[in-house]
Amino acid sequence: MRDPAERGTVRVGVLGCGNVGAALIRLVHDHADIITARAGRKVEVSRVAVRDLTKGRDVPLGADAFSDDPDSVVTAADVDIVVEVMGGVDPAKDLITRALTSGKPVISANKELLANFGKELVEVAETAGVDLLFEAAVAGGIPLIRPLRESLAGERITRVLGIVNGTTNYILTRMTEDGWSFDDALAEAQRLGFAEADPTADVEGYDAASKAAIIASIAFGAHVTQADVHREGIAKIIREDVVAAGDLGYVVKLLAIAETVDGSVSVRVHPAFVPKAHPLAAVRESFNAVFIEGQAVGELMLYGPGAGGGPTASAVLGDLIDAARNLASGGPGAKVGHFEERPMVPLDEVKSQYYVHLEVDDEPGVLATIAGLFGDHGVSILSVQQRGRGEEAELVFVTHIARTGDVMATIEAVTESGVVRRVGSVLRVIGEEHR
Amino acid sequence: MRDPAERGTVRVGVLGCGNVGAALIRLVHDHADIITARAGRKVEVSRVAVRDLTKGRDVPLGADAFSDDPDSVVTAADVDIVVEVMGGVDPAKDLITRALTSGKPVISANKELLANFGKELVEVAETAGVDLLFEAAVAGGIPLIRPLRESLAGERITRVLGIVNGTTNYILTRMTEDGWSFDDALAEAQRLGFAEADPTADVEGYDAASKAAIIASIAFGAHVTQADVHREGIAKIIREDVVAAGDLGYVVKLLAIAETVDGSVSVRVHPAFVPKAHPLAAVRESFNAVFIEGQAVGELMLYGPGAGGGPTASAVLGDLIDAARNLASGGPGAKVGHFEERPMVPLDEVKSQYYVHLEVDDEPGVLATIAGLFGDHGVSILSVQQRGRGEEAELVFVTHIARTGDVMATIEAVTESGVVRRVGSVLRVIGEEHR
Repeated sequence: MRDPAERGTVRVGVLGCGNVGAALIRLVHDHADIITARAGRKVEVSRVAVRDLTKGRDVPLGADAFSDDPDSVVTAADVDIVVEVMGGVDPAKDLITRALTSGKPVISANKELLANFGKELVEVAETAGVDLLFEAAVAGGIPLIRPLRESLAGERITRVLGIVNGTTNYILTRMTEDGWSFDDALAEAQRLGFAEADPTADVEGYDAASKAAIIASIAFGAHVTQADVHREGIAKIIREDVVAAGDLGYVVKLLAIAETVDGSVSVRVHPAFVPKAHPLAAVRESFNAVFIEGQAVGELMLYGPGAGGGPTASAVLGDLIDAARNLASGGPGAKVGHFEERPMVPLDEVKSQYYVHLEVDDEPGVLATIAGLFGDHGVSILSVQQRGRGEEAELVFVTHIARTGDVMATIEAVTESGVVRRVGSVLRVIGEEHR
Repeated sequence: MRDPAERGTVRVGVLGCGNVGAALIRLVHDHADIITARAGRKVEVSRVAVRDLTKGRDVPLGADAFSDDPDSVVTAADVDIVVEVMGGVDPAKDLITRALTSGKPVISANKELLANFGKELVEVAETAGVDLLFEAAVAGGIPLIRPLRESLAGERITRVLGIVNGTTNYILTRMTEDGWSFDDALAEAQRLGFAEADPTADVEGYDAASKAAIIASIAFGAHVTQADVHREGIAKIIREDVVAAGDLGYVVKLLAIAETVDGSVSVRVHPAFVPKAHPLAAVRESFNAVFIEGQAVGELMLYGPGAGGGPTASAVLGDLIDAARNLASGGPGAKVGHFEERPMVPLDEVKSQYYVHLEVDDEPGVLATIAGLFGDHGVSILSVQQRGRGEEAELVFVTHIARTGDVMATIEAVTESGVVRRVGSVLRVIGEEHR
């Protein structure tokens, strides 16, 4: 039975006590005055599930609040709302499902889970009539999910471009501003704790792809999972690409892109040339930003820290106050909305400008031959620069907007033409379709 | 009596049919599918109050929907929610009050009204138990009020820096990037329709001051009105200031600043030097942006179009869907929160770095004399540059953070010292306190 003295207090069970969990527990304690004013009732953390009970935790909670049995936290009578900050699919998915079906609102910061099982979990929440909120799952401290769901509820969003991985943005910033190599920048990111010892999830775009799936789902009301996201990382980006981008008026960024084209959806993660005057070009270091294009609103950008204990916990806390308020008023807040099955645009049909870097022999007729191959495949050239001489000669093309399939066919024909020594980078360019 | 066929449809009365009102009516019609999905019921505009019934309106509504009696729109039985986009205090304040007390939620885009009577109107709404939403009143299409109230509900916000007037940002962009004079840039802004024939409200910072009052109220839960805002415009900014800023690594922006200092609140609008690497420095043309500093979240920026029919109507529509959803679920959404009386920091006590431009005689000892006067008043100098020679000699100081009162006393002493021919611009610098 609930202690009468505690009546009215919302009691929170936290699954996981890493950086985010510990920061959240401290925030709930330190900001109690603000939280009570905003939620209309007291909010306190009553239980915390951890893997290792012996580990010291710098949080204002007694030892009896901790358990190594997350199940017992979810089912505890003195837990009204569950916060899941443990990460991973298993056992988080089962724990969240159990909480929701027993009528307990859930706040999750788990991008992997939501990118793969978001539709299923949202349906469980809506059937149960309780909140499932996940602002912190994408772009950490940046308010994104709530603006997309609520502020832009009546907006026809056409495209979202996001810098949603801080590690890769840090690496690209070092390469761009300080002329570092990819390997040196990665090593420094690891030294600073921005990158994991195994950096694959960041560098190869898996992390960004899970966030792209969530963004596309919310922005378009479409059922998009991580498997639907075309993914290219930045490991093959070399200094020469970054320099060429600068010379042409661009900076290289790893973008998560979600767009609608005639009712179909395209979701992808890849490096791209971004015009220097574009607001995303000014997003430096490990910051994240999401650029939203809507029919009525035009262009918005939301910028901030994409990771870190404090920012992520701040986003979780905003959701927690919302859920606590809704619990008091007797129902969930805004519906997440439907996730309809929408056709995905095949990669070949995605349209983009391209940057193409070729090493060629400096002989008469080479440019004409290659330009002819672009033309044969319907790819129109915006600009071409010749650099170097003799064996060092290079051609740098920027195309107009073209079908990806046509560009890839062009590259194949160029490779087989015999006049090219090596095809260097082939990278997408953000620009013409935007301006 | 309500037509049974219409049961479940939320009917909206719109007060005002200018740019924003007309754009909203078109959006409600054109985005009906999205709106129904998000609000959970149909939303339609049933009545519109206009000043001039004879004027043609490009909106998908029959002539019988229009009235020149706004009172009749507010009280109509077939109006469930009132949208006020007429502007001005009178009669908007009475109309909104009447709507709220009769149990009808209100969406307002009226910054002047909310900056001066927001506390009173919010109290009327809370007493009546209905929504009063005003996302569109500050920074047009940028989601700002909802992120501040909800996403950052548990955050201790320490400072907000906003570029919230598109006209002055356009003028400063032309001066910075194209070397134009203030007068030429203003004339171009007027030609493009960004500036009014009488540009006082924009150029002298009144428009920004009303938005600053609303931002401070929401961010700090403080009762701040337009009269509490210290206000300086950009009419005195000359090209030399913009050039000097560039040389020193800054750009000049008109900022709305709201900050808390030891429980007191300071709210002001003035031009300032912003470091080129600061995200606000990249906000160009007529775009707006609001930079938020919070204890846990760190730094956020929300960027987008601050005005215009489409963007502002998009923000109104987000609020309208929220109110329609809440109407269905039987209660208002998140409380706006308390507006406590908080002490205001006296202007003399506000701390800032300063840029000081002096025309001096190029004689030995002048710099020593002036530097001594800074020191006598406790104002520490970060950098000084001498420019020109003889009668053209100039000194450009940048100070460390200092009390405004001390800087003003220094300027007075410098003026009276006899070694200065003219005191040029004295402008605040954003930087040290931030980095």
